[in-house]
Amino acid sequence: MNKDYKNIKVIGFDADDTLWVNETYFRDAELEFAKLLSSYETVNKIDQELFKMEMKNLPLYGYGVKGFVLSMVEMALELSNNNVSNATINAILNIGKDMLNKPVELLDGVEETLKALSQNYRLILVTKGDLLDQERKLEKSGLIDYFHHIEVLSDKQEANYSKLLNHLDIMPSEFLMVGNSLKSDILPLVNIKAKAIHVPFHTTWLHEQVHDDETKDKTYKTVNSLLDIVQVLN
Amino acid sequence: MNKDYKNIKVIGFDADDTLWVNETYFRDAELEFAKLLSSYETVNKIDQELFKMEMKNLPLYGYGVKGFVLSMVEMALELSNNNVSNATINAILNIGKDMLNKPVELLDGVEETLKALSQNYRLILVTKGDLLDQERKLEKSGLIDYFHHIEVLSDKQEANYSKLLNHLDIMPSEFLMVGNSLKSDILPLVNIKAKAIHVPFHTTWLHEQVHDDETKDKTYKTVNSLLDIVQVLN
Repeated sequence: MNKDYKNIKVIGFDADDTLWVNETYFRDAELEFAKLLSSYETVNKIDQELFKMEMKNLPLYGYGVKGFVLSMVEMALELSNNNVSNATINAILNIGKDMLNKPVELLDGVEETLKALSQNYRLILVTKGDLLDQERKLEKSGLIDYFHHIEVLSDKQEANYSKLLNHLDIMPSEFLMVGNSLKSDILPLVNIKAKAIHVPFHTTWLHEQVHDDETKDKTYKTVNSLLDIVQVLN
Repeated sequence: MNKDYKNIKVIGFDADDTLWVNETYFRDAELEFAKLLSSYETVNKIDQELFKMEMKNLPLYGYGVKGFVLSMVEMALELSNNNVSNATINAILNIGKDMLNKPVELLDGVEETLKALSQNYRLILVTKGDLLDQERKLEKSGLIDYFHHIEVLSDKQEANYSKLLNHLDIMPSEFLMVGNSLKSDILPLVNIKAKAIHVPFHTTWLHEQVHDDETKDKTYKTVNSLLDIVQVLN
């Protein structure tokens, strides 16, 4: 067994873009939104403004589809100078409902990885999305039996993870987090002396992007595919 | 010590309308919404239709303010036959933001009760609202240090509580739930052989109301005020 990971008891998996596709659906939704409002602004400008609106509302709404939809509605009113049609508002609500109803598209090697790791570790799902939405996705994914439970964090910063470890009654060195976001799934864990393995996804939300100097001198492992983790831990 | 409660290790507290005022703010919001749309329908009819819309969307949106706001927007489009003004949509978004920004108004005896019980029991907050919103309220309440952690359930049915007990690694007989809703905080617990104490609040959301025959033959305690629980457990 790899000595770096010999104390690990619990492995936390990020859900969106680690186990299943998510960011792609947000990108599609943003494009659809921009098309709905294309008479007011360019796609590029609408994209930028929507991101700003999401960031403005993030402290109040938090992460997840519902807050995203509320920000799109607000953005539509603002971009149109309060001239947007009811049909467009309705179309925006439907973008959100479609997102919530999307089938779950598993990433490569997910089931095999969870099956192998669940023999030796307690696995938990650690997400900052909306609980109902994540439970629904876990249900649809067929992966529910591999996980002991779901932990929803309102944010994924050091303090949130410290609280989580306290709640799980384990030491930082006994926890390994696996995820696609350096900002949310990796760096906070490294900073509190827990373990982290990075599995990049091809698309990263601007809000989750980090500068190169933020990862400098940070010790974590990057793998190309989830399945590699089984080898890393052996 | 009361023998009925001698095994209790963990006490779960419902948050909204058990520790602090909540339903009152939803009633106020509904009234405000009905006034905004009063040119289309009577207040009473709007109230009924909004409730139906919330129930229709509940499987997709779940509980909490954000889903409520999305249902109000959809209702406004429908009630007005797609003739509602942008100003009204904006006012609806602001109703939601105001709800999320409301100060926390503690109910009688809350702090005293938690202080007394936290000496002998692990206290957790068990809610089906939105995690970020509940964390914010807990922060504002000044009660955060009394709780080991927050558990957010996507719903409060028997299966959700069974999962919670499994996750807490305790037996049903070791768990006591305290709350204002017979449907969500009391009956599911009684049915899985855990303990429950009912502390009624003056206003109950229609969705949380139960028929008399649902409580027949169910064993749970009702107290007038949270503070009475300290006596009951002694």
